[in-house]
Amino acid sequence: MRLLPKRLRKTSHLKMNEFDLIERYFAPLAGPEGLSLKDDTAKLSPRTGQDLLITTDSFVEGIHFPVGMYGADVAERLLRTNLSDIAAKAGTPLGYQLSLSMPAAKMEKWIPAFAKGLETTQAEFGCRLWGGDTTAIDGPAVFSITLIGEVRQGGMVRRAGAAIGDDIWVSGVLGDAKLGCDLVTNKTISPVPSGEHLIAFETAYWRPEPAFAFQNILANFATAAADISDGIMADVAHISALSETCATLNFDALPFSLGAESWAEAQSDPVESRQKLASFGDDYGVVFTAKAKSRQAVFDAARRLKLKLTLIGSMLAGQGAVCLDIDDREIAWPKKGYAHK
Amino acid sequence: MRLLPKRLRKTSHLKMNEFDLIERYFAPLAGPEGLSLKDDTAKLSPRTGQDLLITTDSFVEGIHFPVGMYGADVAERLLRTNLSDIAAKAGTPLGYQLSLSMPAAKMEKWIPAFAKGLETTQAEFGCRLWGGDTTAIDGPAVFSITLIGEVRQGGMVRRAGAAIGDDIWVSGVLGDAKLGCDLVTNKTISPVPSGEHLIAFETAYWRPEPAFAFQNILANFATAAADISDGIMADVAHISALSETCATLNFDALPFSLGAESWAEAQSDPVESRQKLASFGDDYGVVFTAKAKSRQAVFDAARRLKLKLTLIGSMLAGQGAVCLDIDDREIAWPKKGYAHK
Repeated sequence: MRLLPKRLRKTSHLKMNEFDLIERYFAPLAGPEGLSLKDDTAKLSPRTGQDLLITTDSFVEGIHFPVGMYGADVAERLLRTNLSDIAAKAGTPLGYQLSLSMPAAKMEKWIPAFAKGLETTQAEFGCRLWGGDTTAIDGPAVFSITLIGEVRQGGMVRRAGAAIGDDIWVSGVLGDAKLGCDLVTNKTISPVPSGEHLIAFETAYWRPEPAFAFQNILANFATAAADISDGIMADVAHISALSETCATLNFDALPFSLGAESWAEAQSDPVESRQKLASFGDDYGVVFTAKAKSRQAVFDAARRLKLKLTLIGSMLAGQGAVCLDIDDREIAWPKKGYAHK
Repeated sequence: MRLLPKRLRKTSHLKMNEFDLIERYFAPLAGPEGLSLKDDTAKLSPRTGQDLLITTDSFVEGIHFPVGMYGADVAERLLRTNLSDIAAKAGTPLGYQLSLSMPAAKMEKWIPAFAKGLETTQAEFGCRLWGGDTTAIDGPAVFSITLIGEVRQGGMVRRAGAAIGDDIWVSGVLGDAKLGCDLVTNKTISPVPSGEHLIAFETAYWRPEPAFAFQNILANFATAAADISDGIMADVAHISALSETCATLNFDALPFSLGAESWAEAQSDPVESRQKLASFGDDYGVVFTAKAKSRQAVFDAARRLKLKLTLIGSMLAGQGAVCLDIDDREIAWPKKGYAHK
């Protein structure tokens, strides 16, 4: 981690020296590849027979996390959203580079908490800090992580690869992330959810679950996959666009969480409310396609692993993504992501 | 490159769709590893027998580049500063991830120019865009690149590795970058430099030269190396700190550029002025150590390659970094970087 002493010093008035902050809070997070964060680059000796997967997600204060929340929560969320991309490709995380830009005056207070969030998350998922850059900014904080993972050579599950007739599956539940975002941004959620549901919403927002538990299922059965970051319809549309098929989802099959269902049922238009939840994205987890003939095997594998996995539709001829109601009528869907015009 | 459609859309009011911008300007920069910037991750199949080098440098508007300059120049400078780290380790660049945060209203105008700067630079140095993230920010632009390179297994030249008695060498010339920064930030440079020198200053600032030409010399002779980003004294102090030696530089040997010399000689305190130039950093190029017994071989190699390489000092017992005048008296040096306290 080259930490640009001179440049930072220009704008910083820290009681604790910026190098002390790095040395004290970030260096302990470094894996051997990070060379104690004291060289110009990290060094990775890739394992034979493995491909590397590389992803970048950036958070801007006030857009991707609430203003002023520079602590453990945002660090966990940032690292987890990156992990989610690696998980959706059937990969295993290795290490990451961190670019951290925050107001100099906030660093001494917040970097310890931010580092704590990284520490918790990297311990849980088995990856380490390899390097990065810390800069002062007179404006919104920007945090960016480039995460590197590995996957058996040729084993990356791409977005391209689905074929007509494939089943569409989704991991976990949908909807909590949108309500979690409402919660952390102090929007009113009406009716007031139960305490249990509130916890689920908040957890879904700050600590989304990358789908590593589905790694073997993806590796064995998936023809295409993506993580659920843009809303389920947009995410399947991305797969469709690259696979030259039409993703057809059954609206009633979408696995909304209990909390999200309770909320939606109490709204004036429950269908539209569920659409809003499903369009928000940020649920993470994974949506993937698999051959219809593997259906029972996929069901069995998920049951064996005690994983929630739901069959939500199938790939048909055509393009884009459509959602059908219980009578097979298409439900108008406002936003389907960039691939669907 | 997952481009967060939804999130960007929240804050963006572009005439041209953000995906069109990416597709039109960034996708053509993508190497095969980037999967047309349409998957969740890039995929690299590392070559056998090679280590990977990973580095991150981030630029904040108003700190690392002048306010409002979002175009080709800043893109070139950003990519080149990252390339400089790979070059200093005797590596070869492969590809990079880009995190770009700029005001939404500026994107349509500036992204084409920014992409052009990337294109020029990646063509010159042989690397490609693999992915990244584009986000809108209501504040200073933040550009961050994580660059991945490769080096023969075990061939990375570390900062650690110098021994007592080693020579210290520096590539190229010093001083132009500081005067280039003064120039682009509209500070008065007095006396007015010649047109030729002005061009050299501006070029040094916007298009610093990564030391790839020195790759074989580094690989064959260097015991330790770092790129010159924090000022020569700070950079050798970093090597000292990890090598447990004392870098001893001969002030009169420092290879200031002709333009920098002309400027310094005309100042009221030429020694102090040269120190300022050398402390500013951003000269890039490489400083490295090599065995004294290799001195003639290093000289000969540089001459053969027609490269400017200067012997500027040697590693002695002790710690930190000192600079001696022509009578071997230590020159007081205000800033020596984080390793020297």
